[in-house]
Amino acid sequence: MPLDHSVIGLEGEPQERSWTAKDTMLYALGVGAGTSELEFTTEKGQRVLPTFAVLAAQARGRRFGDFDPAMLVHAEQGFELHRELPPAGSVRTTSKVTGIYDKGSGALVTTEATAVDPETGEPVISSRSSVFIRGEGGFGGERGPRDDWAAPDRAPDHKVTYSTLPEQALIYRLSGDYNPLHSDPEFAARAGFDRPILHGLCTYGVTGRALLHAVAGSDPARFKAMSGRFSSPVFPGESLTVSIWVDGTDVLFRTAKDDGTVVLDRGRAVIA
Amino acid sequence: MPLDHSVIGLEGEPQERSWTAKDTMLYALGVGAGTSELEFTTEKGQRVLPTFAVLAAQARGRRFGDFDPAMLVHAEQGFELHRELPPAGSVRTTSKVTGIYDKGSGALVTTEATAVDPETGEPVISSRSSVFIRGEGGFGGERGPRDDWAAPDRAPDHKVTYSTLPEQALIYRLSGDYNPLHSDPEFAARAGFDRPILHGLCTYGVTGRALLHAVAGSDPARFKAMSGRFSSPVFPGESLTVSIWVDGTDVLFRTAKDDGTVVLDRGRAVIA
Repeated sequence: MPLDHSVIGLEGEPQERSWTAKDTMLYALGVGAGTSELEFTTEKGQRVLPTFAVLAAQARGRRFGDFDPAMLVHAEQGFELHRELPPAGSVRTTSKVTGIYDKGSGALVTTEATAVDPETGEPVISSRSSVFIRGEGGFGGERGPRDDWAAPDRAPDHKVTYSTLPEQALIYRLSGDYNPLHSDPEFAARAGFDRPILHGLCTYGVTGRALLHAVAGSDPARFKAMSGRFSSPVFPGESLTVSIWVDGTDVLFRTAKDDGTVVLDRGRAVIA
Repeated sequence: MPLDHSVIGLEGEPQERSWTAKDTMLYALGVGAGTSELEFTTEKGQRVLPTFAVLAAQARGRRFGDFDPAMLVHAEQGFELHRELPPAGSVRTTSKVTGIYDKGSGALVTTEATAVDPETGEPVISSRSSVFIRGEGGFGGERGPRDDWAAPDRAPDHKVTYSTLPEQALIYRLSGDYNPLHSDPEFAARAGFDRPILHGLCTYGVTGRALLHAVAGSDPARFKAMSGRFSSPVFPGESLTVSIWVDGTDVLFRTAKDDGTVVLDRGRAVIA
């Protein structure tokens, strides 16, 4: 059944989401922060990892068609932070589908969300994401905008390697994504994987920590924006190396596994 | 100021506590269960580690005196499970101080708690614990009952070694014990430790997993009771080896670090 193009541009109902200091500590542990990042993993002078913005601004959007959820993969994720997130807080988020593109083998559905302070209405987070739905392409639509990202023709200015724990996905999922692809070996096998894979947004959070510490002086207030494209799965326990190129406040990055496979590609960040 | 002996035997107000499937998964991760114990760390056919009983049956008791909380250490912990705990549930717990003993250098205060099903009033958990309060001894009281525990004169029937993560205390504390002794290096230094120590009840939970898998066939329904005495601190990241002697349904155990230091001593368990 083709996707429903009539939803493009229509905003869903605003949804409020609140979080506690425990939620943001659990998130930090979920993306691999530990005893060397106590300002994120404990309540003493607690601050919030910028990538938590993606979870805070999640909102159920309008349905854009019937398809097998197993055919859907998270393709891209970006966010902009208009202010530093508090350890405990709440936002009211509105989302809309912004495009349904025809990539041949599948459809790329892009979504935008805006999260505001429920009290004042001031913007807190702008979030953009896309999902790729296998088998839903070939409807004769536009291929969508091209991205001119290219790695600079020089060695990275920073390379940061973080290991992930074998238990990483089990910890991360308690932040709210209970998709059994990340925990259940039988389910993962049916999806074609030898074992459960790490959440893309966990890889994203690990990468965000590398950016935060390498180029933002570990100060979340300087971390303004981040985006990237998921390009390959990660298994819990694998190490991730983030290559970072800095050009003023603009940052390019790419995250790869030990064998060189790029897992988060075409990365951009803005660091004040 | 001496401890208040008049509270002995007086029950505190009943307190209700409920928990969710997420709470019991987080607890399992906190005591080191991972991808090989998915029935405890994920919601698929979820079961509950028996040692969660100690947290479920925690209740604030009557005050038994003014003293510096930094002088208090958890000394002993025991529990009896009258039925298997559900992944999500609730209990109503009543606790009382059962004794204040004079150990010379300090006082040993023993407490009992009974947790019942709030709907039916049927007993779910009986819990016993004691705390040692340095500097509060020497009041001329009884020394308290002696324990005739002795390791059998043979090699252990089972030896199980589990590693703990450097992040173990940071994960465990999200189950509710936010004492900075387990997370804050400055606080730990003031208490005389090189770095934060693991929660005694985390060591207890790691030990409970060893007992569950070694002698209870990984079946929480067979795990009836467990008790032990905390004898030395553990640092997150250290390995723990549980030595187990089985005599029918009665089990003796002792948990030690790699260097042989016993950290949980005089262990007893009952496995059906």
